[in-house]
Amino acid sequence: MSLTAEILSVGTEILLGNITNTNATFLSQELSVLGINVYHHTVVGDNPQRLAEAMDIALGRNDLIITTGGLGPTYDDLTKQTVGRALGLEMELHEDILADLKARWERRGTVMPPNNEQQAWFPKGCTIIPNDWGTAPSCAIEKEGKTVIMLPGPPYEMKNIWNRYVAPMMQAWQDSVLVSRYCRVVNIGESALEERLSALLKNSLNPTIAPYAGGGETVLRVTAKAATREEAYALTVPAVEHIARECGDDLYAVDKDSMEQVVCELLRELGLRVATCESITGGGLARRITDVPGASDVFECGLVTYSDRMKYRLADVSLETLRAHSAISLEAAIEMAEGTLKQSGADLAVSVTGVAGPETLPQGEPGTVYAAVAGPLGTRAAKLTLLRSNDRDRNRINATGKALDYLRFYLLDLQRSKRG
Amino acid sequence: MSLTAEILSVGTEILLGNITNTNATFLSQELSVLGINVYHHTVVGDNPQRLAEAMDIALGRNDLIITTGGLGPTYDDLTKQTVGRALGLEMELHEDILADLKARWERRGTVMPPNNEQQAWFPKGCTIIPNDWGTAPSCAIEKEGKTVIMLPGPPYEMKNIWNRYVAPMMQAWQDSVLVSRYCRVVNIGESALEERLSALLKNSLNPTIAPYAGGGETVLRVTAKAATREEAYALTVPAVEHIARECGDDLYAVDKDSMEQVVCELLRELGLRVATCESITGGGLARRITDVPGASDVFECGLVTYSDRMKYRLADVSLETLRAHSAISLEAAIEMAEGTLKQSGADLAVSVTGVAGPETLPQGEPGTVYAAVAGPLGTRAAKLTLLRSNDRDRNRINATGKALDYLRFYLLDLQRSKRG
Repeated sequence: MSLTAEILSVGTEILLGNITNTNATFLSQELSVLGINVYHHTVVGDNPQRLAEAMDIALGRNDLIITTGGLGPTYDDLTKQTVGRALGLEMELHEDILADLKARWERRGTVMPPNNEQQAWFPKGCTIIPNDWGTAPSCAIEKEGKTVIMLPGPPYEMKNIWNRYVAPMMQAWQDSVLVSRYCRVVNIGESALEERLSALLKNSLNPTIAPYAGGGETVLRVTAKAATREEAYALTVPAVEHIARECGDDLYAVDKDSMEQVVCELLRELGLRVATCESITGGGLARRITDVPGASDVFECGLVTYSDRMKYRLADVSLETLRAHSAISLEAAIEMAEGTLKQSGADLAVSVTGVAGPETLPQGEPGTVYAAVAGPLGTRAAKLTLLRSNDRDRNRINATGKALDYLRFYLLDLQRSKRG
Repeated sequence: MSLTAEILSVGTEILLGNITNTNATFLSQELSVLGINVYHHTVVGDNPQRLAEAMDIALGRNDLIITTGGLGPTYDDLTKQTVGRALGLEMELHEDILADLKARWERRGTVMPPNNEQQAWFPKGCTIIPNDWGTAPSCAIEKEGKTVIMLPGPPYEMKNIWNRYVAPMMQAWQDSVLVSRYCRVVNIGESALEERLSALLKNSLNPTIAPYAGGGETVLRVTAKAATREEAYALTVPAVEHIARECGDDLYAVDKDSMEQVVCELLRELGLRVATCESITGGGLARRITDVPGASDVFECGLVTYSDRMKYRLADVSLETLRAHSAISLEAAIEMAEGTLKQSGADLAVSVTGVAGPETLPQGEPGTVYAAVAGPLGTRAAKLTLLRSNDRDRNRINATGKALDYLRFYLLDLQRSKRG
């Protein structure tokens, strides 16, 4: 039986939306790696009654509660007192901590404000966890099979304390390890994908397989649990292979973060440098490629030829094509790619042009997009299929992703032609 | 007495730390503007029992519960059923929604997967809220003084539904109107800004003034409450004027969304077209400018001259400069801007070059950035001050913002010289 955990964050600024609860994200990732099931996140404000109630609920439903926030020196920092009361523990002053706090102010040539004395009071019987990055020491309490670990709210302090003190302590508790792998799929909708994989999705317990969609792709998370990392990884292999068989090239990455990373790796492997020529995406395509560290080895240049004049001047698109077919056409996409290839001296060039919206143009509705790639396999061009939307931002983001994917397919064919 | 609210997010991917609960941030900000107190955020996974328990707790302690997630077509999307059960409501099929869903697939030339039928089932007596951005309609239920509003998980769909349908509905419940105005400040750190405005921040009750920092800027939200929109707006005016006096040109926008919008408006007013030449930002600068609808009137072209060869070939940077000063220098920035101005035939050109990181280069640490603008006032160039960071993404984003701001100051001077 593995532990269940709740992350209880204390801070009115989260409830006002002034800050996002990224502490919960970090702790969830860390606990998941440790094989601890996080069942709840809760956020309450700096209010003693609601904090006490939330603590009672958390203690009633989970084994491990990690709190963040409310360890500061001000009157509304109440976490330690409230947790102590919920567990029936008195508070006690730790003279050594107080002396240490006072010494910090002395080293800066000032005197500790009286408020800060409360940072040296802790529930009786707790284990103090040092804070080398701020004034609020953390602590952990175990009572009646429940463990509460209290961490400060500022993410920088919280993460450092976690990494240096808490994670090693928790690792020692565990008898199993979780390994998660991420399979990233494009061109197949979430529900179509689930139907195709329904037997796998429904019958898998170890590994578990969870799909989630967003940003024009579906990610399948394959998570296995075992005594060692190697055994857990081995358990994921058949499921990942099954997904690869079902999805073919539409599974664009396993254990990688992004399409641009995959494209840059293919370019590097093939020893090629790419140039981009964009209209609808306005620089987004170049930006995604250059987001990858080391992109300078595989990225030659980008042209954002927004006006017809620039398509002609910079990318060598003929005035006849622009007149006869307009800049939003398969013909223009082809000439943009071929012209950019010639102008840049890169090994291949990708172009993308289309209607972002919100208005419909004579050439088509928002989301009408053409792309082309010119390179060692000759020139290929296509009208890309975007989900219908009048949203300008969304169409630009989706066009960027689809153009990157179109480039990826060209590179895959190039890779096969070299291997074959 | 104002309403109390809870945001109940459903999704195992949040509990695993795969995504951060930014939906809760957005909804908290929105509810706060409406004068509704958010007392709790809760996150549970796609688990019917824990979701049901969390719903019971939420109904027991708050008046309004807003759920996000769990409205999709898959077997683990359970929000509607679970909320229905908690409120003692049967589920019923809405034939019109089903027909509408089927028509969506038909328009794409395919057939709706049977899974998606569950998106047309709702608890009896609920109000359907359309989803114009995805397949999962939302709904709202009122029972025994409690209101539950169910929204989808993908932030894009959730925000659009909120803005178009839910926010107007909630505004109608209120007996007073809230008006919020956003003052966007750059180049002054959050705590320096708070000190400069301390009297205003501390003494303001109506309007309230809330600062929050992020993305290289500080936003001051000025919110006033009154019987009518006009009265509420009038209450905000003295505070906004006070902020404008204190911040000068560093207050770059009031009631506008972004720096790029301000820059495009200045260009339009001046009747000028801009070209960009980027190295460190890799297309991000062109992308931000072209994010603005209608940017094609003021944006001529963008060059992403990532390699030295392209700085020479496309932007006319001299080989001597590249050799003597390298591509990351004030001299290179100047020639990039001037060369791009010449090559493009635009009215002015902005360039940016620098060290993204994570490695330190001979030219400087990550975050070392140079920008130049060439145009009607001649060429100006500067080393830009970024907050120190080794994070590549952060440095690229901050360099984009700082370069845009550098262009904005040039345009402000141009505007003054024309007026003066």
